[in-house]
Amino acid sequence: MSKQIHFGLIGAGRIGRVHAETLTFRLPEAKILAVTDIDSEAAQALAAHCGIPTVTDSADEILANPAIDAVLICSPTGTHAELIVKAAEAGKHIFCEKPIAFDLGKIDAALAAVEAAGVQLQIGFNRRFDANFVRVRHAVESGEIGKPSLMHIVSRDPAPPPISYIRSSGGLFLDMTIHDFDMARFLMGDEVEEIYTSAGVMVDPEIGKAGDLDTALILMRFRNGVIATIDNSRKAVYGYDQRVEILGSAGKIEIGNCYPNQAIVSNGSTVHRDLPLNFFMERYTESFALELKSFTQAVLEGKPTLVTGIDGRIPVVMALAARKSYDENRPVRLEEVNA
Amino acid sequence: MSKQIHFGLIGAGRIGRVHAETLTFRLPEAKILAVTDIDSEAAQALAAHCGIPTVTDSADEILANPAIDAVLICSPTGTHAELIVKAAEAGKHIFCEKPIAFDLGKIDAALAAVEAAGVQLQIGFNRRFDANFVRVRHAVESGEIGKPSLMHIVSRDPAPPPISYIRSSGGLFLDMTIHDFDMARFLMGDEVEEIYTSAGVMVDPEIGKAGDLDTALILMRFRNGVIATIDNSRKAVYGYDQRVEILGSAGKIEIGNCYPNQAIVSNGSTVHRDLPLNFFMERYTESFALELKSFTQAVLEGKPTLVTGIDGRIPVVMALAARKSYDENRPVRLEEVNA
Amino acid sequence: MSKQIHFGLIGAGRIGRVHAETLTFRLPEAKILAVTDIDSEAAQALAAHCGIPTVTDSADEILANPAIDAVLICSPTGTHAELIVKAAEAGKHIFCEKPIAFDLGKIDAALAAVEAAGVQLQIGFNRRFDANFVRVRHAVESGEIGKPSLMHIVSRDPAPPPISYIRSSGGLFLDMTIHDFDMARFLMGDEVEEIYTSAGVMVDPEIGKAGDLDTALILMRFRNGVIATIDNSRKAVYGYDQRVEILGSAGKIEIGNCYPNQAIVSNGSTVHRDLPLNFFMERYTESFALELKSFTQAVLEGKPTLVTGIDGRIPVVMALAARKSYDENRPVRLEEVNA
Amino acid sequence: MSKQIHFGLIGAGRIGRVHAETLTFRLPEAKILAVTDIDSEAAQALAAHCGIPTVTDSADEILANPAIDAVLICSPTGTHAELIVKAAEAGKHIFCEKPIAFDLGKIDAALAAVEAAGVQLQIGFNRRFDANFVRVRHAVESGEIGKPSLMHIVSRDPAPPPISYIRSSGGLFLDMTIHDFDMARFLMGDEVEEIYTSAGVMVDPEIGKAGDLDTALILMRFRNGVIATIDNSRKAVYGYDQRVEILGSAGKIEIGNCYPNQAIVSNGSTVHRDLPLNFFMERYTESFALELKSFTQAVLEGKPTLVTGIDGRIPVVMALAARKSYDENRPVRLEEVNA
Repeated sequence: MSKQIHFGLIGAGRIGRVHAETLTFRLPEAKILAVTDIDSEAAQALAAHCGIPTVTDSADEILANPAIDAVLICSPTGTHAELIVKAAEAGKHIFCEKPIAFDLGKIDAALAAVEAAGVQLQIGFNRRFDANFVRVRHAVESGEIGKPSLMHIVSRDPAPPPISYIRSSGGLFLDMTIHDFDMARFLMGDEVEEIYTSAGVMVDPEIGKAGDLDTALILMRFRNGVIATIDNSRKAVYGYDQRVEILGSAGKIEIGNCYPNQAIVSNGSTVHRDLPLNFFMERYTESFALELKSFTQAVLEGKPTLVTGIDGRIPVVMALAARKSYDENRPVRLEEVNA
Repeated sequence: MSKQIHFGLIGAGRIGRVHAETLTFRLPEAKILAVTDIDSEAAQALAAHCGIPTVTDSADEILANPAIDAVLICSPTGTHAELIVKAAEAGKHIFCEKPIAFDLGKIDAALAAVEAAGVQLQIGFNRRFDANFVRVRHAVESGEIGKPSLMHIVSRDPAPPPISYIRSSGGLFLDMTIHDFDMARFLMGDEVEEIYTSAGVMVDPEIGKAGDLDTALILMRFRNGVIATIDNSRKAVYGYDQRVEILGSAGKIEIGNCYPNQAIVSNGSTVHRDLPLNFFMERYTESFALELKSFTQAVLEGKPTLVTGIDGRIPVVMALAARKSYDENRPVRLEEVNA
Repeated sequence: MSKQIHFGLIGAGRIGRVHAETLTFRLPEAKILAVTDIDSEAAQALAAHCGIPTVTDSADEILANPAIDAVLICSPTGTHAELIVKAAEAGKHIFCEKPIAFDLGKIDAALAAVEAAGVQLQIGFNRRFDANFVRVRHAVESGEIGKPSLMHIVSRDPAPPPISYIRSSGGLFLDMTIHDFDMARFLMGDEVEEIYTSAGVMVDPEIGKAGDLDTALILMRFRNGVIATIDNSRKAVYGYDQRVEILGSAGKIEIGNCYPNQAIVSNGSTVHRDLPLNFFMERYTESFALELKSFTQAVLEGKPTLVTGIDGRIPVVMALAARKSYDENRPVRLEEVNA
Repeated sequence: MSKQIHFGLIGAGRIGRVHAETLTFRLPEAKILAVTDIDSEAAQALAAHCGIPTVTDSADEILANPAIDAVLICSPTGTHAELIVKAAEAGKHIFCEKPIAFDLGKIDAALAAVEAAGVQLQIGFNRRFDANFVRVRHAVESGEIGKPSLMHIVSRDPAPPPISYIRSSGGLFLDMTIHDFDMARFLMGDEVEEIYTSAGVMVDPEIGKAGDLDTALILMRFRNGVIATIDNSRKAVYGYDQRVEILGSAGKIEIGNCYPNQAIVSNGSTVHRDLPLNFFMERYTESFALELKSFTQAVLEGKPTLVTGIDGRIPVVMALAARKSYDENRPVRLEEVNA
C-alpha cells in the first residue's frame, strides 16, 4: 500500500476507543492525527494509549486540519447528522456510527451534503463484516440454499442498558433493532415493504415507564415475498444471542452463537459448555476491525464504501414503521412513514 | 394390570395401521376386536397383520358390539364429528384423530354428546407425548427457564402432500398448523388471544390454485403476554424440521431435530451428518405409541385423558383466526371467530 | 412370512427378559413356547408377563421339546458352552449370549458341535445392529472415508458392577471389553494381530482386590496396518459413553452418544443438555430387537447368521491377549494365546 | 505500562514473521530494533513491513547491540542451542522456538548457560496459551472433572510437509508430536514415566523412504497413573484436527475443533458445516500473540516465564523414548533415554 490515510477521531467513548485501537495497532495504512471529545480527559487518555499526537477542543479543529483525510464520527447520535454535513463540506471522507439520526429530514440533509461534496461515507453497521453473516449472505447470493422464503433473526442483549441511555437512544427499534433491520436487508439483498410489530415490556417495568419496550417480535414482508422475523430482547441471562436462519427452496442455513472456547464438560448432572461470548465487544471484535479496514481501502482506492448513506437511512425508516405498527397494532407499509 | 381394553378400529389407512400395530404389539393391556374401513381389502389386510378377529362392513357394527370398550376414529376428517356423537351415544370411550371437524358447530355438538354420555375422549395430538416436547413443557412448568417471553415453533414438512389432499384437508392451517397450535398451547400452558398471519405460495403454484398457502409465519400473542411464532412450510428439502425455542427470564430451551444416527463425517469438503428423520412416522414413532398407552391407562383408571375435547376445539378456532388474519391482513382476536 | 419360529428361553434374568419381550411383542414371526431358570419364580413371572405357555424345570426339557426350533441361551457364562453342545445335539438353532466361554478349548468344542449338527448359531453381539455402528461400518466398507489408518473406540460404563459380579465375570476384558473387541473387528472388517494393554485400578480399590482392573487403554494393530485403541472405564459419572472414531485417507467418521432428548438449555451459568442415555438397556434397545429379528430371519431363510461362532471365539482370544499384555507389560501377538 | 522491551529478531521465516507482526502491531510494550536472516531479502522485506529500523548481517550483531533487551530465536532448529548460549552470555532474555535441539547434551549446555547468566528463557509452545487448552488445564487443576484417569490428544495436520523438511526436522516425534508431548505435560500437570509407540507409514511411502513415520499412536503412562494417548497423522483431508479429551472421576472435558464460522447448512443431501480452520496459523493465531505478550510481561516484571527451559527439554526426552519404543516395539521408560 503506497499511501496512508490520516484520520481525525470525534468521540473517545467506548466505540471510539475500539476504532482507535484498530486504526493504531492493526491497520498500518491508517494513522490517527487528532482526537476530540467533550470529556477532554477521555480524549487525553486515548491519545496517550494510541500515540495520537493531537487532542483538540472541538470537532471543528479536526475538520479544519488539512492533513486529515477522513473522520470517524463516534459522538452521540444527536450530533451525527450535523457533523456529517460539516465534514462533507470540509471535504473529509466520513465513517459514522449508526444511526445517522432519528429524523429522516436530518438524514436526507446529511446525505445530500455528502453527495454534493463527493466524499465517501460509511455507516458503522459492523455486523456486515462478521464472518458468520458474510457466510449467510454468501449462501443467499450464490444460490446455495435456492430461493429464500423464510428468515429469522434473533438478537438479544445480555442485559438492558441503563434507563438513562434508553431515554435518549431513540428506543428499542432505533438503538438495537436497527442493526437487525440492516442485517435483514443485507442478508436478503432486497427491501422490506411491510412491517408488523408485537412487543411488550417483560424485562423491566422501568423500561416501560421510560416509554420504551424491551421485548419485540417484528414480522417483515420483503418485496420478493420473503417473510422474516426479528426477535429482540433486552435481556438474555445466558449472554449475547445473535443468530440467523434462512429457509430456501434448496436448503437452509443457520448460524449459532460464538463461544470463548470449544470445551464440552460432562459431569454427573449435565453435558455443558461455557456461555457464549457475552457482548458485542467480544462477539464482533473482528468485524469492527474489518469495517475500518474496508473503509480505509475504499478511501485509498476511491471506490464506494460497502455500507452507504442509503444503508444508514433505510433502517431508520424501518424502525419508524415498526414503532408505528406497534402503536396502532396493524401492519404498516414502509411508504407510510417514508412520505 | 388386571383388565384389558377392547378396541374397535374405524379406519385402516396410514394412521389406523400405526395405531393398530401399537395396540397389538406394544400394549399388552389393549386388544383390537374389530376393524372397519370403506376399503374392505385394507381392513382385511390389517386384520391379518395384527390378528384382529373381526372385520365389519360398517362403523355401526363396531359401535353395536357390546364387547368393545373404546373406538379409535381414524377415518377421514369429515366423518369424525358424527362418529364421535354415535360412539358417545353407544357408550364407547373415544380416541379420535385431529381435527374433530372444520366447523365449530359440529365440534360443539360432538363435545356435547361426549359430555352427556360421560365417556372419555382423547384427540390425537401425539406430539404432546414426544420426549422432546415433554422436556420443553417441563422446563416451562417447573420454572427452569423462568417466566417465558418469546416462543418459536418451526414445523416444516419434507414435501407437500398431493394437491388432491390439499383440496379436502381444510388447508394449511387446519391440516398442518393445527398440530403447532396445539403445541403452542401445550408448551405455554396458556391461551392465545390474538393472531396475525403472513403467508404465501412459495413452494408450488398449484397449491395456490387449489386455494391454499404453502408457507406461513403466524404471530400469536398469549394472554400472559408471551409473543410466539409458528413457521410453517410445506417443503424443506432436507427433511422434516420440527423445532421449538422458548426464551424466559431465567434462560432458554431449544430443541433440535432428531437424526437416524449420531455419525459425523468429515471429508475434504465439509463436516456433515445424515439428514434428520424424514417424516412424522419416523420422528414421532414413540409418541404415537405413548398417546395410546396414555389413553388406554386413562380408560382403565377412569381418569381424564391428557388431550381433551376442548384441546381438540381450540386449535380449530386458532386455525380459523389465522386464515381470517391472512385474508384481511390484520391481527385477529380469537373471539372474533369464536362467536 | 409363512412360518413362525418357536423358541425356548434358557435364563430369565435381565437379558432374558429383554429378549423375551422382543420376541413376544415385536416379532410376529417368533413365539416362545417355554422358559426355564434356576430361579423358578423369575421364570414364572416372565412367562406370565409374556404369555409363555410353559415353564420348565430344566434346560433339558426345553431341548427335548420337538416343537421348539431354536433356543435362546441367556444363562450365566459358565453354562454357555455346554448348553450350546447339548442344543446342537438336539438339533436346535442357537442364539447365545456372549462370551461363549472363558476357555478356548470349551469354545472350540461348542463350535465343533454346532458344525457337526448343522444348526445355526448367533452370538449376542447386539451392537453390530445399532444404527450408529452400522453407519460407521458402512463408511468403512463403502470407501466413504478412504483407507482407514487410525480407530478409537470409547466404551465406558456409568458405574461398576457389584464386586460379586466382577469375581465371576472373567474380568474387565472378558465381560466388558469383549464387546469392543467385537466392534473393532466388525467395523474394520479385518483381524487384529497384536495387542498392548495399559491399565489400572482407578475407580475402586475393591475391584483391584478382586483381581480385576477398572480402567484400560488397549492398543491394537490390525493386519492391514490400522492402529486402534479401546478406552474402557468401569465408571463415567455422566453416564454410558459409547463412541467410535475412524480416520481414513479420505476423511473421518465419528459417532457421539445418544440422548433422551434434543433439548439444549441455556441459563445464567451454562449451555447444557441432559445426560446421555444411561446404560445399555436404553442405549441399545433397538439393537437387541434387531439382533433377534436378524437371527429369526436367518433361521427362517436358512441363511448364515450375521454373528457366527468364530465371531464369538476371536474376541475371547483378544481378551486373553489383552490380559497377558497387561500382566507382562509388553505387546502380545494373538497367536501367542491362540496356540 | 512504563517501559518497553526492545527485541532483536533472529530468523525472518514464517514463524519469525508471525512474531514480528505481533510485536509490532499488537504489543505496544514491545519494539523490534533489529532483524537478521541468512536470506537478507526476507529480512529486508520484514523490516519494511513492520518498520524495524535495522537489518543486520548476523545474529552476532544483534547480540552485541546493548539497546536490545531480548531476542527471538526463529532460525532453524540446528542453530537454537548455540544461539541460546550466545544470547545468554550476552545477557539477553530469550524467546526460542521449539525444539531447543535434538540432542540432550546440547540442550543441557544451553540451559546451563541460561541459568549461569540469570536471563529469562521461554520456549515457543504456543498452544499453552490457546483458550481451549487453557480451559482444559483449568478443568484439571480446579478439580472440575475430579481425579483424571484417561487422556486423549488428537493432533493431525492437513497435509504432510515437503520431504525435504522431513529429512531435517528430526522426524514426526521431534517436529510434530513434540507439541503434543508438551500439551500432555501441561494439561496433566504431571510427568510421563513410560511410553509405548505404534506407528507406520500410511500417508505417503516417500515419507517412509526418508526414514520417517507419518501415522502414530503413542501411549503414555504418567507418574500419577493416568493413561494417555497421542494420535498423530501427517494428513487429515478435512483440515487441522486438534482435540483433547480427559476423563476424570467427576466428569470429562473434551475440546472440539475451531471453525471459521458457526454456519450450518442443510440441503437435500446432508446437514453440514465448513471445514475447520485449516492450519496452525489460523487455529492458533491468538496463542502466538498471547505467548509473546506473556514473555514480554515476564521480562518487564522480572518474573519466571510460563514455559521454561525444562519445559523445552522434557518433550525431547519423550520424543526420543517414543522413537526407541517404535524401533524396539516395547514400552520404554523415559529414564532409559535420559541417562
